[in-house]
Amino acid sequence: MAGIGGEAKRIKLVVAYEGTEYCGWQVQPNGITIEGVLNNALSKMLGEDIQVIGASRTDAGVHSLGNVAVFDTRAKIPPEKICYALNQRLPEDIVVQSSCQVPDGFHPRRCYSEKTYEYRTLNRKIPIPTLRRNTYFYYRDLDLMKMQQAAGYFVGEHDFKSFCSVRSSAEGTVRTILSCTVEKISGDIIIFRVTGTGFLYNMVRIMAGTLISVGIGEIAPESIPEILKKKDRSAAGPTAPAHGLTMIGIKYGGGNI
Amino acid sequence: MAGIGGEAKRIKLVVAYEGTEYCGWQVQPNGITIEGVLNNALSKMLGEDIQVIGASRTDAGVHSLGNVAVFDTRAKIPPEKICYALNQRLPEDIVVQSSCQVPDGFHPRRCYSEKTYEYRTLNRKIPIPTLRRNTYFYYRDLDLMKMQQAAGYFVGEHDFKSFCSVRSSAEGTVRTILSCTVEKISGDIIIFRVTGTGFLYNMVRIMAGTLISVGIGEIAPESIPEILKKKDRSAAGPTAPAHGLTMIGIKYGGGNI
Repeated sequence: MAGIGGEAKRIKLVVAYEGTEYCGWQVQPNGITIEGVLNNALSKMLGEDIQVIGASRTDAGVHSLGNVAVFDTRAKIPPEKICYALNQRLPEDIVVQSSCQVPDGFHPRRCYSEKTYEYRTLNRKIPIPTLRRNTYFYYRDLDLMKMQQAAGYFVGEHDFKSFCSVRSSAEGTVRTILSCTVEKISGDIIIFRVTGTGFLYNMVRIMAGTLISVGIGEIAPESIPEILKKKDRSAAGPTAPAHGLTMIGIKYGGGNI
Repeated sequence: MAGIGGEAKRIKLVVAYEGTEYCGWQVQPNGITIEGVLNNALSKMLGEDIQVIGASRTDAGVHSLGNVAVFDTRAKIPPEKICYALNQRLPEDIVVQSSCQVPDGFHPRRCYSEKTYEYRTLNRKIPIPTLRRNTYFYYRDLDLMKMQQAAGYFVGEHDFKSFCSVRSSAEGTVRTILSCTVEKISGDIIIFRVTGTGFLYNMVRIMAGTLISVGIGEIAPESIPEILKKKDRSAAGPTAPAHGLTMIGIKYGGGNI
């Protein structure tokens, strides 16, 4: 347990995890979550009741290289060293990449940020076992150029209601996408990468599922603007499976954040 | 069960697996092995007692994209379709990539072949959870250029006794390395890739461990020829951990093999 009694400080963590074994980020009554594991480990380590606030509340099975969480502590441990001490108490599928102090008012969901996600599809006839946890296997031929063309239509400020799970209670559904690309890397992996200032519930997975529908010719690339205009979830493609999705990282505007 | 009673045919399988959960390739009394799982699944599927012969008898924890196994069968199922039927009976961490008929005399270890292995090291200060099963995490800075220089000395025909586990009973220890490269890809991953016509027990892992010793300055690149000359296991570096190693594929000389 670290010494308590210092000034209250707000600490920002960059958190990487493999989501396979977790019921997502957010604490829930039945099931182990990333947030829950972090709260327990931090509370035990610092001797305070810690509850982190996460930036991206990823679904069950979604992975992360750079999700962000903040919490307040009076512990005297230097902020930059928290990640090393914390990693000793975390399972090997959750690893904090860095820790630092941020201004007290910093909130990881309310401050302006640019979030990047990647959706990986393994497009070949037979699966590759070493990729099965973080790449969605899809055996029908995907037309890369059509997917790239379709992805271009997502860039800009649009109402993404058609790309939002109907379970969502979000009021405003207008979001801004800063970049959206599709590329193929060796080993038949198609990577859909999207950066935006905000995302609706399941939005990236519905975009990925729609791009796959474009890739097999079920949706024409040039019909994306029309699908956006309809503001109807049923106009877009299916929600792609969670395990293909990785939260890559979040850029905040402020100086030391 | 497939219909039996046809001509005996020799079938070649290309086998991919994640080795994490297995006690290696070769059947052993205590523990589940890739070979054992294949034997059971094939025997049940074909209604014969099948025992495969593997090309690379990989250690516990080592992965594969293209290991090779052969077996003989009288079943009437078309050779090319065996992989699809077999994959239905295999766990998701073993996936047969292809199946075809080969000449009766074809033996995957005795015929001339060129085998390629890859050893992956994640070289940064903090591990990445999604890479933990197939990439060895090493936090001390590695000098890529020194490693590349050292790798060059392995190419050609040499006595690799210094790079062979002392447990090995191999008589001849001269082997030919056709290519040997070290490169860095994004995400701080250093890939050591080696192709040769034959390898001794633990040879690639000892080469990888020696290259890591070169990378941290404990072994000079130009001392590799000297280490080879000593024919003494203790002259080389440590055996790198199994989980960083992947059997990439095997090229055989013959026409339809």
